[in-house]
Amino acid sequence: MSELSRRSGVPVPTIKFYLREGLLRPGRATASNQAEYEEEHLRRLRLVRALITLGGLSVAATREVLEAVGEPLGRYETLGVTHYALRSPVAAVPEGDGTDGSAAEVERLVERMGWTVTEQSPLRGALAAGLRALRGVGADYGAEELVPYAELAAATARLDLDQLAGIEDRIDIAERALVLTVLMEPVLATLRRMAQENEAALRYAGQDGGAGG
Amino acid sequence: MSELSRRSGVPVPTIKFYLREGLLRPGRATASNQAEYEEEHLRRLRLVRALITLGGLSVAATREVLEAVGEPLGRYETLGVTHYALRSPVAAVPEGDGTDGSAAEVERLVERMGWTVTEQSPLRGALAAGLRALRGVGADYGAEELVPYAELAAATARLDLDQLAGIEDRIDIAERALVLTVLMEPVLATLRRMAQENEAALRYAGQDGGAGG
Repeated sequence: MSELSRRSGVPVPTIKFYLREGLLRPGRATASNQAEYEEEHLRRLRLVRALITLGGLSVAATREVLEAVGEPLGRYETLGVTHYALRSPVAAVPEGDGTDGSAAEVERLVERMGWTVTEQSPLRGALAAGLRALRGVGADYGAEELVPYAELAAATARLDLDQLAGIEDRIDIAERALVLTVLMEPVLATLRRMAQENEAALRYAGQDGGAGG
Repeated sequence: MSELSRRSGVPVPTIKFYLREGLLRPGRATASNQAEYEEEHLRRLRLVRALITLGGLSVAATREVLEAVGEPLGRYETLGVTHYALRSPVAAVPEGDGTDGSAAEVERLVERMGWTVTEQSPLRGALAAGLRALRGVGADYGAEELVPYAELAAATARLDLDQLAGIEDRIDIAERALVLTVLMEPVLATLRRMAQENEAALRYAGQDGGAGG
């Protein structure tokens, strides 16, 4: 177990907790106080660690993802299960009563883009909540205004999925999908802010009294 | 004041708090317990509200942005000050000691993109922290890998800045920039997740046992 801890960077007490919670299978006992852990254990441990620390998942939600990853699902389902277990990127916004039109705008956008998004996807509700929050401050974004943003999101998703190509193992796919989704989100947000700074410099620096960067 | 509260949707006690903290100028007294508030008060109140509730800014940081917005700065500086006051999108990551190369990768990226990003910009450190977090889970992104993402971020920023065109008033610019940055980030993250779901369906649905959406 100390070897597993050393290779994964996860402290021994944490590994013991994961074992007790059934998130990790016990190793093959080789002596009364020794067990052998294999490559499979290491990969599973890394995924558990990523789900809990990066994804912010509860033990119960982590167990759900692991069960799905253990099923003979295809890549598509493996990705979906991992995805849906994550928290929404949109902070809590009062639930709409369905009459404010934001849910309808989401449907319109999905149709305009020709996107395959399951009916049960929590992303539909998350996007509607985001639109409601925008409307609350007077910024009205409907399907029409979102299309150019959605096209750039589609191009970004193609880059993302390219990075899953060639990975065959379901544990590895789930782990990489998590990393791509959770850790890349703040990186992409930072890139956008940098690009905004640059774009503002290009358009406005030197104008109306501004000196610029 | 009740009229101001009604028009802004901000409760009277909150307006009184902003007045006490000097975030809002007092109205013109018309009677011992009456004051007149103008359009300018309403716009400033909306900005204060947005900075504190959406941007998560402290009263002190809000005061700093308001002072900047009150100065005869150009659009570029107004945007910069608003931007820099915001929290980093990257969650707290241990500061690098500068030897892990992530800061150098950020410089390389900025140079490759030809971006104007001020030396003092907190975005450089935020991006380096994001790259360190990725490296911590074995996902090594350097300038090379980030360029295609940065190009899409640049296209997104052009859409963003298009929405500031035609707005001349500095309070309005600062408010709109905040909304664009803070409220659009989770919306864009949601669009990317939706697009990932669609892209995964296109590439993998029906393969290796998967039925798909």
